[in-house]
Amino acid sequence: MPYVAPVKDMLFVMNELAGLSEVVSYPSYAEAGADVDLAPAILEESAKFNQDVVAPLNWPSDQNPSSLKDGVVTTTPGFKEAFKQFGAAGWQGVVHPAEFGGQGLPKLIATACFEMVHSASLSFALCPMLTDGAIEALLTAASPELQERYVPKMISGEWTGSMCLTEPQAGSDLSMVRSRAVPEANGTYKIFGTKIYITYGEHDMAKNIVHLVLARTPDAPEGVKGISLFVVPKLLVNADGSLGERNDVHCVSIEHKLGIKASPTAVLQFGDHGGAIGYLVGEENRGLEYMFVMMNAARFAVGMQGIAVAERAYQKAVQYAKDRVQSRDLAGSPGPVAIIHQPDVKRMLMTMRGYTEAARALAYYAAAAYDAQHASPDEAARKQNQAVYEFLVPIVKGFSTEMSIEVASLGVQVHGGMGFIEETGAAQHYRDARILTIYEGTTAIQANDLIGRKTVRDGGATARAFAEKIMQTEKDLASSGTADAKAILKQLTAAREAFESSVVYIVANAKTDIKGVYAGSFAYLRLCGLVLGAWQMARALLAAQELRAGDPNFFDAKIATARFFAENLLPQSQALAISIIEGGQSTNTLTAEQF
Amino acid sequence: MPYVAPVKDMLFVMNELAGLSEVVSYPSYAEAGADVDLAPAILEESAKFNQDVVAPLNWPSDQNPSSLKDGVVTTTPGFKEAFKQFGAAGWQGVVHPAEFGGQGLPKLIATACFEMVHSASLSFALCPMLTDGAIEALLTAASPELQERYVPKMISGEWTGSMCLTEPQAGSDLSMVRSRAVPEANGTYKIFGTKIYITYGEHDMAKNIVHLVLARTPDAPEGVKGISLFVVPKLLVNADGSLGERNDVHCVSIEHKLGIKASPTAVLQFGDHGGAIGYLVGEENRGLEYMFVMMNAARFAVGMQGIAVAERAYQKAVQYAKDRVQSRDLAGSPGPVAIIHQPDVKRMLMTMRGYTEAARALAYYAAAAYDAQHASPDEAARKQNQAVYEFLVPIVKGFSTEMSIEVASLGVQVHGGMGFIEETGAAQHYRDARILTIYEGTTAIQANDLIGRKTVRDGGATARAFAEKIMQTEKDLASSGTADAKAILKQLTAAREAFESSVVYIVANAKTDIKGVYAGSFAYLRLCGLVLGAWQMARALLAAQELRAGDPNFFDAKIATARFFAENLLPQSQALAISIIEGGQSTNTLTAEQF
Repeated sequence: MPYVAPVKDMLFVMNELAGLSEVVSYPSYAEAGADVDLAPAILEESAKFNQDVVAPLNWPSDQNPSSLKDGVVTTTPGFKEAFKQFGAAGWQGVVHPAEFGGQGLPKLIATACFEMVHSASLSFALCPMLTDGAIEALLTAASPELQERYVPKMISGEWTGSMCLTEPQAGSDLSMVRSRAVPEANGTYKIFGTKIYITYGEHDMAKNIVHLVLARTPDAPEGVKGISLFVVPKLLVNADGSLGERNDVHCVSIEHKLGIKASPTAVLQFGDHGGAIGYLVGEENRGLEYMFVMMNAARFAVGMQGIAVAERAYQKAVQYAKDRVQSRDLAGSPGPVAIIHQPDVKRMLMTMRGYTEAARALAYYAAAAYDAQHASPDEAARKQNQAVYEFLVPIVKGFSTEMSIEVASLGVQVHGGMGFIEETGAAQHYRDARILTIYEGTTAIQANDLIGRKTVRDGGATARAFAEKIMQTEKDLASSGTADAKAILKQLTAAREAFESSVVYIVANAKTDIKGVYAGSFAYLRLCGLVLGAWQMARALLAAQELRAGDPNFFDAKIATARFFAENLLPQSQALAISIIEGGQSTNTLTAEQF
Repeated sequence: MPYVAPVKDMLFVMNELAGLSEVVSYPSYAEAGADVDLAPAILEESAKFNQDVVAPLNWPSDQNPSSLKDGVVTTTPGFKEAFKQFGAAGWQGVVHPAEFGGQGLPKLIATACFEMVHSASLSFALCPMLTDGAIEALLTAASPELQERYVPKMISGEWTGSMCLTEPQAGSDLSMVRSRAVPEANGTYKIFGTKIYITYGEHDMAKNIVHLVLARTPDAPEGVKGISLFVVPKLLVNADGSLGERNDVHCVSIEHKLGIKASPTAVLQFGDHGGAIGYLVGEENRGLEYMFVMMNAARFAVGMQGIAVAERAYQKAVQYAKDRVQSRDLAGSPGPVAIIHQPDVKRMLMTMRGYTEAARALAYYAAAAYDAQHASPDEAARKQNQAVYEFLVPIVKGFSTEMSIEVASLGVQVHGGMGFIEETGAAQHYRDARILTIYEGTTAIQANDLIGRKTVRDGGATARAFAEKIMQTEKDLASSGTADAKAILKQLTAAREAFESSVVYIVANAKTDIKGVYAGSFAYLRLCGLVLGAWQMARALLAAQELRAGDPNFFDAKIATARFFAENLLPQSQALAISIIEGGQSTNTLTAEQF
């Protein structure tokens, strides 16, 4: 089933909700040539590449996944060639600095491009996604020497990156990392240890792999404060930049997974033959701090994967629902009709569409905040947008991925019996999406981050600032006064109040009843996603009402989707607030033995 | 991972919520030897068989599914032997009449036994499940001759049954069935046509397969009123009961499915070599009516599959959560603890447990209503219980299966990265559960049935009768007066009111705004499941408070689970009522072209 990038919706969101015109005005982006007219050009180009080159690989790659033989991973047919084109066309470097070969454009634009490659193939896109995170970590913390040696080849797509964090005993809790880094006289380190779940930890799509590895030096303190970050290339790099000997890092197995099968998930053994040569990134013992840079980029990116797979599953379901003729129309058609005319099929498609559009709008809004944080000429705006972005990252990650499982599951359901047959392809999305709430920090980790660092730590100030922005939109809805605006206003007000009550409860009780409050962390994350997503959809409605005459078909659909979201998805907010405020005790009552 | 049948919870539900003592007092069951002490004996025996014989086959069978070669399906190793034991021990015949070799016991007892075999292996259990439906259809509609010829061998497990309904163009809409049945001079028929998605339509676990096939006679009216039901044995049966020639029905392919892989799903070709010999069941053109008997049994059974796979996924997740040590306790433990101590893990496990226990209680309650409908000596009670059972069937099917997908998905999530690795086994439940909302009538079909035939047709009378029963429980909660009872009362009252408002809205508007009302059919089904499930859990709490001293550990857990359900799951009811009452219009706004 072909994928058609939703360029129109992406541009609408970028222009009307995320403030593209302001973003491209920031000096560094303007210098790089960004303007509002560049975005459609880039998006069209990206759409073409992903629709034509990557998307057709998605289903065959699932049936013929990457395989391991004698330590060598052979990726699925077509990935190598597609990745070469991806790099050559400059897609790896959209946001990265021109001095290293990138384009230096806003994250807002790059986000749309990445959404497309994820929709085209989650398995494929993981390779550039992880490489992107590795580039960002090197740019943040590595010495100019390391940057010059590694970053340009990663941006060009000649080499890829990997993130080597997890160990068998250290998953969500990285303080338990045990890999060792022993300093050598020449300033390098010898790295020893086992890393698991390493996405594209071994493959044949690039000439070299730049592993970023967490390890402990011999006299490092215990826990998170004793972890350092190292570059460990698969092949050593000579002084002139050419490739040298094989480093002592080897893939010993790849996982047999539920989904994203074409993406090799490696177990890597470092140092079994004398020690892998590693280069310290930044300072010793600050590794986790650097890794967080990479992880925040990756968390946002995984959120985009959720939106991307939801979009793909939605398109597929719509196509099937238009094609499949079965049963009469409920209102009494003379003969059977396409199932898209059945109200419950519409309910499923609208749910898929509503979640996807709302999550996209919120993620792009967050990307614009990231751009403002990094490139706005106004210091106060930079600071404010940092708080906005940091609040939104766990929501973009957690909410978009949780909804993607539901959306992919609905995609199967729309197909009926056909959905359960693998060849149909709907089941692949259901399998693929299932990893998204797990890797790069489970939803629980995102929810803990949102409640602890992002809400309680500032006494709920950032959360309240969002509530105030929503109230402004409520005023705009009231002034608009259309039936749609009024219907949304009613639900948005109730949901915003539920959000505010939850924030008050959480801030007031986090110290005295930590387990009770954190029992509601998932509900709080979901509530935030719903209310902020609905807020973006309400803003979308207001913009669509203004712009309607230019493209009635598109804008009417946007208006209807905004109202559907408010009336059919958003009302869950109040149930979630009850869980948060009243449900903590009963969640924690059972002892481990009583389960 | 071993399965341990939750016999204690099953017996609690049977005795305290479903009225086992009354059920076994009905004359026909009493004559068959049923009494309250028989239930634990049977359940323990069933537990032993399923735990020891069937459950260990579940994971290997997924990895080594049934295969087709030259029209012969070889089932996964172990299934044949296990099915032989299943039949020999009498498990196929628990509810069926003694005159045909069954035990003649209540459905309430059989339901617990079937839950166990489904938990042990959904793929395996489908074979007896479909056979059960076929037996029921034959007992309802077939001539004594056909019954005598086929039923005893099916009850003994020597032969199995299949339900051949679906054709490529006739899935949810059976009026479009095109298979033909041509009468022969000797009173038999020649059957021609293609049937798809036939569970255990071909296999090597029994000596013969008794296909029940929907087809049209030459001069049958169009649509549902022209469908007849036929017995088409795989091997013809001689007058003396011995097996004769191969009939003209052949398996041409089996599906490559997302889950329940060990269960062969066949495409069957009837009559490609001159016509398959079929025997009319009952009267011509009444086939759909008979098939509904079978389908209602099968729908209830699929609901049990949902509960069963949820139970299995829950047990697995609990075990992992107890074993996996990671991160400190939030309240500040000296070192890392098992993840079961993390509030969000408890939230997931409690959600899994809450849904499973509530759905079990509701299904067993429904089974008891079935028994009263068929065996109560009181005519008014029979009639009343028929309405109760018929109202509950789509809820047991739709709610239990929808929740099973969520529960299986949470099971994966509790396992973190391990959950995504196939060898762990959690992913199998996630894959297997995905069919349950589709086959034997999708959730949309159940929801349409619930709203149309079960709610609107009697003007909401049955629904209101449930509301009154819930109000009685609310009074009991108020009299109890414990903190737990009061907390549940608050939520149950709000949810019951949401249910009542929804019923009023649906009944009032079903004629004038059919598409708007049916847009809320899924929400209504889910609302019914939540409020009726919570009602059973409230009744469970009241019973548990009385019985607590006898087994504090078990009953305290029941009380906590009831309260968790009320505070953390039930509040969704109000959001669903908003969807039903206010959300219909926006669900239907988009035209097919706008998607």
